[in-house]
Amino acid sequence: MAVGQYQWSDVHAVAGIRLATAAAGIKYPDRQDVALIEICEGASVSGVFTRNRFCAEPVTLCREHLTLADARYLIINSGNANACTGDAGMAAAKNCCDEVAALFSVSGNSASGDSVSVDSVSPESVLPFSTGVIGEVLPAEKIINVLPELKNKLDGNHWHSAAEAIMTTDTRAKGCSVKVDVGGCDITVSGIAKGSGMIKPNMGTMLGYVATDAAIDKSLLDELTTEVANKSFNRITIDGDESTNDSFIVMATAKAGLARINSKSDEGFAELREALLHVAESLAYEMVRDGEGATKCVSVDVLGAGNSNEALKVAYAICHSPLVKTALFASDPNWGRIVAAIGYAGIDDLDPKAVRVWLDDVQIVENGGCAASYTEEAGQEIFSKEEFCIRVDLQRGQSREKLWTSDLSHEYVRINAEYRS
Amino acid sequence: MAVGQYQWSDVHAVAGIRLATAAAGIKYPDRQDVALIEICEGASVSGVFTRNRFCAEPVTLCREHLTLADARYLIINSGNANACTGDAGMAAAKNCCDEVAALFSVSGNSASGDSVSVDSVSPESVLPFSTGVIGEVLPAEKIINVLPELKNKLDGNHWHSAAEAIMTTDTRAKGCSVKVDVGGCDITVSGIAKGSGMIKPNMGTMLGYVATDAAIDKSLLDELTTEVANKSFNRITIDGDESTNDSFIVMATAKAGLARINSKSDEGFAELREALLHVAESLAYEMVRDGEGATKCVSVDVLGAGNSNEALKVAYAICHSPLVKTALFASDPNWGRIVAAIGYAGIDDLDPKAVRVWLDDVQIVENGGCAASYTEEAGQEIFSKEEFCIRVDLQRGQSREKLWTSDLSHEYVRINAEYRS
Repeated sequence: MAVGQYQWSDVHAVAGIRLATAAAGIKYPDRQDVALIEICEGASVSGVFTRNRFCAEPVTLCREHLTLADARYLIINSGNANACTGDAGMAAAKNCCDEVAALFSVSGNSASGDSVSVDSVSPESVLPFSTGVIGEVLPAEKIINVLPELKNKLDGNHWHSAAEAIMTTDTRAKGCSVKVDVGGCDITVSGIAKGSGMIKPNMGTMLGYVATDAAIDKSLLDELTTEVANKSFNRITIDGDESTNDSFIVMATAKAGLARINSKSDEGFAELREALLHVAESLAYEMVRDGEGATKCVSVDVLGAGNSNEALKVAYAICHSPLVKTALFASDPNWGRIVAAIGYAGIDDLDPKAVRVWLDDVQIVENGGCAASYTEEAGQEIFSKEEFCIRVDLQRGQSREKLWTSDLSHEYVRINAEYRS
Repeated sequence: MAVGQYQWSDVHAVAGIRLATAAAGIKYPDRQDVALIEICEGASVSGVFTRNRFCAEPVTLCREHLTLADARYLIINSGNANACTGDAGMAAAKNCCDEVAALFSVSGNSASGDSVSVDSVSPESVLPFSTGVIGEVLPAEKIINVLPELKNKLDGNHWHSAAEAIMTTDTRAKGCSVKVDVGGCDITVSGIAKGSGMIKPNMGTMLGYVATDAAIDKSLLDELTTEVANKSFNRITIDGDESTNDSFIVMATAKAGLARINSKSDEGFAELREALLHVAESLAYEMVRDGEGATKCVSVDVLGAGNSNEALKVAYAICHSPLVKTALFASDPNWGRIVAAIGYAGIDDLDPKAVRVWLDDVQIVENGGCAASYTEEAGQEIFSKEEFCIRVDLQRGQSREKLWTSDLSHEYVRINAEYRS
């Protein structure tokens, strides 16, 4: 189940990036479940990760590797999260990185006849990612077995198959790509992502990979990656569960021929920022539309808050309320559940009489109760839509925050009650 | 659906308390949906209420009345919450109080022949309570119509019918009663409650009424009522939604013949406290067992926390996780979801390797992963039970808190998707 239609549209190749997939048989036989992404030398790579204290072993290793070397390879599997797997899980993740590094370290012969490495790839330049069931050690050998196949299949046009390989309970592969002109030079931003459950801000059980051929200073890209994650993947919530494995990686290959961006005032920064935001927001929105069991995709827009935290508290309370989510599923404009959530969101001095609520453009709450102009028919019409907006004006200040969420359906319960079986 | 069997056992009459019910036709015809409770003169009455900022109009009025007069009558309806109903809702609640007061103010004739009130009941000594759909003004006239019938039916033995009349989505009436001996004198504590959805700490859409024939100072009873609520109704969570209407009332009629309890060191205080706690905890636990769509009733016991707040954060994260709750429904010991919830509970410096988790007596997590001694069969056996305990030791300190929760089932979605239809 998913909201509306989704048409995969071409994800443009990004010079300097090649991708490959293979069926390693991690959870299911004959399913493409491993993806390898190769990044050219000289690229800048940034990542942001889950804040879950029980973060997965590959996340810990990934964070460490990013500080030690320039990333050259991403090895990603679905079907097993390799989370909470302790020393054995860490060894499995390291093993995969070691083998990828060895495979791509080309050996040659020196003048004296000794074997030397002429293109050495260190294990620290390989980043591991896993998604799937928590608590089972990754079967590293299954991944290692398909590495030669992956190496042979690397191709700049394999974004779609990579998007498919990283899916778990997703029902559709998610990709987005834009080209923007910067002073006569095209730069490309292309991305893929997976995630449809265990999704809440600070990221869900999601993986996102976005590449651009722009050239950008590493520390500036770090800053931009955090900003983009906060405005996209950290603004969606499906079930309020924050995963152990979330990772979002941005790669800038510097192949577009545009001058390197070293500061926010440099040519191309504004365009690149906008393109990255567009791609990340599109991918995040598609995650909600493909949320587990989702039949609705709703934005919750809270304005008039005293500060950003207040706005988020109210938006989260609405998005996480099982009663609001089941009312969404039922297409029942039961606005009492919305105001109840606002009331317990944790703003102690909230004035209920000041709060105003709209469903799209239909006002439903004013003066502490139902809006005088509201009719059940008008509310019903909005709630029957697959995508709409719940807008809340607290009338306390100028801050505003928006989240996206899905509903709570029978299908959500079925998926999550049957997930391991 | 509800967990296990529940046998209503006799709720003892409490001297000084009489109850009656009637069918007012508020939401459904021919359903007993109004209860009246009469409290003798000279009783101490305390109440605690929802902290939802959108609290219902009767809750606002109730709070006010409790400060203005000694409570003599409680008028309670199901089928309509009279919440977020503004001035019209407040007028309806006041109207009910006025009419109850008028009905019980007995008129007589003075020597000069003038009509005077000989037993005057003020509107402020009447406390109104409503539970049901939010956002519709209470039809006060329906309640007023049945007041004479209620007056005629008042009886000290009508606890069961009162428990039935206040139900909404509850599947069973909930009552509990104990007698304790204090220095050769029996005191009785009897209570009823309703609630099975919109339940979380700070109380759910719940109503609880407990009476005792002990005599106790009003301010001491206020303190005791808050303590008892915090240790019972404020320790359960079904869906994390905090209602607009929660109210818990304790009445002490002073009819047992025991000396008035004026301080915590007075004879009978310890016994009364224990009896009140027992009754309130039993009623709260029954709410979880009768949680909307519940097939499991699970206690989450967090120990070794640095402070009470930490313990509660972890316990709430587990109790509110839709993924944990669907795993409970599926009887699937998917412990990865439990540790993921612990990991995102908000303890920034949590050491995952120190965390230990048990299902009843089966250890499932240690050293950041699956316990060496754990077997899937052992976990499966516990998860297949209808009632068990998830115990978490954070190994950070000495604080401990326990919550009770239910699972997330198809039936929960069905009930809440169909509630208004």
